[in-house]
Amino acid sequence: MRIRYYNAKILTMKTLDITAGELWTEDDKISYVGEGKPSDKPFDREIDICGNLLMPSFKNCHTHSAMVFLRSLADDLPLQDWLFNQVFPREAKLNGRRVYWFTRAAILEYLTSGVTAAFDMYFYPDDYAAACIDSGFRSVMCGGVCGDDKAEDLEDRFVKFNKLHPLIGYRLGMHSEYLSPIELIRDVSALAKKYSAPVFMHNSETKKEVDECFGRYGVSPTALFDREGIFDYGGGGFHCVWFDDRDFEIFRKRKLWAVTNPASNLKLSSGVAPVCRFLEENIGVSIGTDGAASNNCLDMFREMFLVTALQKLQTGDASACPADEVLKMATVNGAYTMGLDNCDTLETGKQADIIEIDLSQPNMRPQHNTVKNIVYSGCKSNVKMTVCAGRILYRNGEFFVGEPQEKIYENAETEVRMLLTE
Amino acid sequence: MRIRYYNAKILTMKTLDITAGELWTEDDKISYVGEGKPSDKPFDREIDICGNLLMPSFKNCHTHSAMVFLRSLADDLPLQDWLFNQVFPREAKLNGRRVYWFTRAAILEYLTSGVTAAFDMYFYPDDYAAACIDSGFRSVMCGGVCGDDKAEDLEDRFVKFNKLHPLIGYRLGMHSEYLSPIELIRDVSALAKKYSAPVFMHNSETKKEVDECFGRYGVSPTALFDREGIFDYGGGGFHCVWFDDRDFEIFRKRKLWAVTNPASNLKLSSGVAPVCRFLEENIGVSIGTDGAASNNCLDMFREMFLVTALQKLQTGDASACPADEVLKMATVNGAYTMGLDNCDTLETGKQADIIEIDLSQPNMRPQHNTVKNIVYSGCKSNVKMTVCAGRILYRNGEFFVGEPQEKIYENAETEVRMLLTE
Repeated sequence: MRIRYYNAKILTMKTLDITAGELWTEDDKISYVGEGKPSDKPFDREIDICGNLLMPSFKNCHTHSAMVFLRSLADDLPLQDWLFNQVFPREAKLNGRRVYWFTRAAILEYLTSGVTAAFDMYFYPDDYAAACIDSGFRSVMCGGVCGDDKAEDLEDRFVKFNKLHPLIGYRLGMHSEYLSPIELIRDVSALAKKYSAPVFMHNSETKKEVDECFGRYGVSPTALFDREGIFDYGGGGFHCVWFDDRDFEIFRKRKLWAVTNPASNLKLSSGVAPVCRFLEENIGVSIGTDGAASNNCLDMFREMFLVTALQKLQTGDASACPADEVLKMATVNGAYTMGLDNCDTLETGKQADIIEIDLSQPNMRPQHNTVKNIVYSGCKSNVKMTVCAGRILYRNGEFFVGEPQEKIYENAETEVRMLLTE
Repeated sequence: MRIRYYNAKILTMKTLDITAGELWTEDDKISYVGEGKPSDKPFDREIDICGNLLMPSFKNCHTHSAMVFLRSLADDLPLQDWLFNQVFPREAKLNGRRVYWFTRAAILEYLTSGVTAAFDMYFYPDDYAAACIDSGFRSVMCGGVCGDDKAEDLEDRFVKFNKLHPLIGYRLGMHSEYLSPIELIRDVSALAKKYSAPVFMHNSETKKEVDECFGRYGVSPTALFDREGIFDYGGGGFHCVWFDDRDFEIFRKRKLWAVTNPASNLKLSSGVAPVCRFLEENIGVSIGTDGAASNNCLDMFREMFLVTALQKLQTGDASACPADEVLKMATVNGAYTMGLDNCDTLETGKQADIIEIDLSQPNMRPQHNTVKNIVYSGCKSNVKMTVCAGRILYRNGEFFVGEPQEKIYENAETEVRMLLTE
């Protein structure tokens, strides 16, 4: 399948320059980006971009996709009540079929926000992977072992899902220090060594979590993981709100990724991640929405604005954390965090993970600075098209994900009703 | 003109219950809200709402609409540099024609976010009012006298604009304590008494502003205004970030409105308004976007999420500032702040200022709690229709504002280019 997108503005994210031109795709890859030239082969489809912007899609670097079933079911509650009385008892009623349909619903929402890849930690990985593959959506799954889980199961999944399908990847991971016993942490560390693989987990999301880790081990979660060899081959953490000097040093030395989740951190009153300090220390930052039970929407535009706005608040400096950096976090850095080194920029040979931003809408005008417009006034209503691995999955409000939107919702909502009445 | 909107869910905001039914309008007013009944007169138009939600439109309670011309022109700069080197020199080049076209562009953006009324403080009021009237958009203008301005001019405008057109109102106001000399403050106070009228102004936006007022007068801006009789007939303040106990007491006793502007306060690193304390003290809170130079978008959904999320952060309590309260602030309270007592709820006889929220989109599903969905996961892409004074101004992405969207932008952008090259 050869598609020509012409009459476009193009932001490759290799640089932040915007040029006029066209972009071609062949199957899942970009085959040309430039001013335009004659083609020696015919196109299957030619699409007029009407002067709008083509840019790399967003990469959602921390989420629990299937949690959309809990959206707005339990908000405005204290954290402990929310987690133990609302979330956990309902999650106990999940099954593979439910995770499949809830994930398919979440993917629709990702596509409206220009997201083509999610770094997802949740239950029922086979069903999750099937939902992504059936939708044409890319995902890197993150292991979330905890409690009595066995490292062998993590290894089985790591091996299985990394060879399952071109759209699916898997990274070693555990839930967190507070839910993962030290023996499990050591077993995961052994896997990291065996496969020279990076490891990810929830890390220092709340002050309580860090204080309790100091109580248990005498060090922070980051220092504990480092001491146990978890980070010997890289990786990173989700949230990374409560960091001390030593944690920054470990992240910098080990080249770890700090994945920030500002909306979730606000809504659960966890705090504000020290993003400016990460930037100063040359620690890579990427962005995630977290799950819809704690956010409550899967919208990278809201996250991007919050990343910079909260830094401006926290540092007292309106020039802190400029828009250019934030757009890199949401695109290029997100790809690298997940190990998707071929989904970062718009260049020949790269994966065709592309969005079209409608520049004609009121919030994108005037066009003094397109990057700043996207970060400071952008909104998912500006996402006119979302392309993943060369396939147009969303365009002009319509989905092309193998099943009609209504069928996906009918199935998902039937499962929600059943789950809530069991 | 009689319009029937049927097959709707209806949130009147008189209560937070959502019922199924229909809503009729006759010219600028709502003529019926209920389950449906036979009509003795024919309708000019009948619109199937397809199970979506009709609710009162949003009221933007603090803005400088024409500032859209500065969007993304000067971000990521320290506040003083931004204001004195970027904003003021460019505002000096405004004229009536420019304010007219920039305001018309801003109104398009308001409509996409479900806003039908703006409480606007800016220059060239005749041209601003003309832009609103020509668009069919409601506005209450707020006086912004400062420096050498004369109170007589404020009085002339107050009298003139309050009888100009049903869509236009005018409230007494001054820019702020720091830009308005004490003689002017006293003259405005005399006008408040003469007309038994409320007065509004920027108030306690930054700590510097409050500290300097204490230096000049020995009291806070709020206490100064109160001492000078400015609040004898009510009113309120924009921003209201840096309040002390006495300020809260004055706002409570005088029944003043605290208009919060969270995105602007973050982006200019001004702080977080004490919204929970306002609620505890039964002080009325409404919401504004501020101008597009400091926000940068005119989007009430972003503001609503920030209002509650920042309170959850600041109080350390995830149950703080619940969604119900926030939705009231953005609708009913907004109308009352501007004195639009007839634009608050969906009831027979009220002004037909109505929006349709698309409940079929991914971020609105499942429908566990529609109010929480709107506040926590809502987005302007959910605004399917915006009706002001009975006229459909926006529906399915199309504008009906007397001029084609492209002509408005062509004129606005020509004026921006001329202004920047002069």
